Amino acid sequence: MEKKDIVFNGKEKKVFATDNDNRIIIHFKDVTLGYNNIKKAIFRGKGEVNCRISAMLFKLLESNGIRTHFIEACGSDMLCRKIDIIPLALTIRNKVSGTLVSRIGVDEGTVPEEPLFDLHYNNDEFADPLITGQHAVLLGLVNKEELAFIYETAGKVNGILSEAFHKAGIELVDVKLEFGRAADNGEIIISDEISPDTCRLWDEATGKILDKTRFLKDLSDVVASYHEVYQRLSQVLSD
Amino acid sequence: MEKKDIVFNGKEKKVFATDNDNRIIIHFKDVTLGYNNIKKAIFRGKGEVNCRISAMLFKLLESNGIRTHFIEACGSDMLCRKIDIIPLALTIRNKVSGTLVSRIGVDEGTVPEEPLFDLHYNNDEFADPLITGQHAVLLGLVNKEELAFIYETAGKVNGILSEAFHKAGIELVDVKLEFGRAADNGEIIISDEISPDTCRLWDEATGKILDKTRFLKDLSDVVASYHEVYQRLSQVLSD
Repeated sequence: MEKKDIVFNGKEKKVFATDNDNRIIIHFKDVTLGYNNIKKAIFRGKGEVNCRISAMLFKLLESNGIRTHFIEACGSDMLCRKIDIIPLALTIRNKVSGTLVSRIGVDEGTVPEEPLFDLHYNNDEFADPLITGQHAVLLGLVNKEELAFIYETAGKVNGILSEAFHKAGIELVDVKLEFGRAADNGEIIISDEISPDTCRLWDEATGKILDKTRFLKDLSDVVASYHEVYQRLSQVLSD
Repeated sequence: MEKKDIVFNGKEKKVFATDNDNRIIIHFKDVTLGYNNIKKAIFRGKGEVNCRISAMLFKLLESNGIRTHFIEACGSDMLCRKIDIIPLALTIRNKVSGTLVSRIGVDEGTVPEEPLFDLHYNNDEFADPLITGQHAVLLGLVNKEELAFIYETAGKVNGILSEAFHKAGIELVDVKLEFGRAADNGEIIISDEISPDTCRLWDEATGKILDKTRFLKDLSDVVASYHEVYQRLSQVLSD
């Protein structure tokens, strides 16, 4: 597939057209952002390792009947089905961490009776607020049936990913999913990436943080931890 | 019922013990607060008119099978069943207004397909954040069955109140409900007040704002508008 004109230069990704109108190439940058884009760093190799991890996890999901935008990856480039982005992020939390701690005062690591589904509106102007499903419908982003499909899919994805990470001795604390409508047939599919930038991952044996929280908390070895996730996942997923 | 020691001196209400352990007297103050307690004013007579409106609406709800903390009212005092407060506020929105406009950028007055249910955690430390039902359960404030009961009750209340206000030529734009567990038998009942301080009320003919928004926007005749609501409601509710 030939990389053609750049169609979008985002903060952490570049998107290129291809010779197929329904395909794009997403280039994963080494740029890392946090705290609503206030904190920024460049980690050499981060884009490529995230592209590799995402490719592995998208393949796993596809093999379990979950539709994603992934087609194939090479280096830090991912050939994807073109989508119309749905500006929602759905975080599924198996343990409480991150913004939820400061939002409602529940202790880090608290285990809810069932995974929490926190929906956010991806909109810089409003600082990506937490919203309800009703707000998403009101905003015209999805209809009720589509929203139900997104929640059901997210539950399945959380189960599949949790099991895969557990086999690698890693706890999936939470995962943020994004969705879009495929340009060719309109079906809703998982988009963006699934990587240590979009998941909280804790080593099951030691509790060591293996995700983007290392960057947010100024801990060392950010990319080394991402590589560790890649290595451990590849061992169990190639079985 | 004899008013005994003050047991709680809140920002907009005082609570007194009575000679019955399961009864309290709530005194409605003239103090009005807005914007997370940053804006404050005293409107002479506001407490009494809100107490009267609340009494009328609680009676209406009780006559429709909805359980509330209301027993009887006199002046700006309301004799109530004692409750353990559940620190949640559930706002039911028939049209978009207020904080939701600035939260997600939907136009004031937008009509959702069905009423919106926005749940907030009443906690000054966290500035009363919007939360999900799952968060309320995680916080240990309610269990899933109780939450379902609260939502179901709120839907009924919105229907009953909307109809009553409509008869008075007033549109119920939104209403904020609070709940507690009755001290005597533990049942979940509606607490707090239902008044122009907790509802958005627009004159159906002219669009004139008849609620606390007048105070927030520095409009004139705050208490006069509350009295108008009381007069118009009393005419249709005494039929």
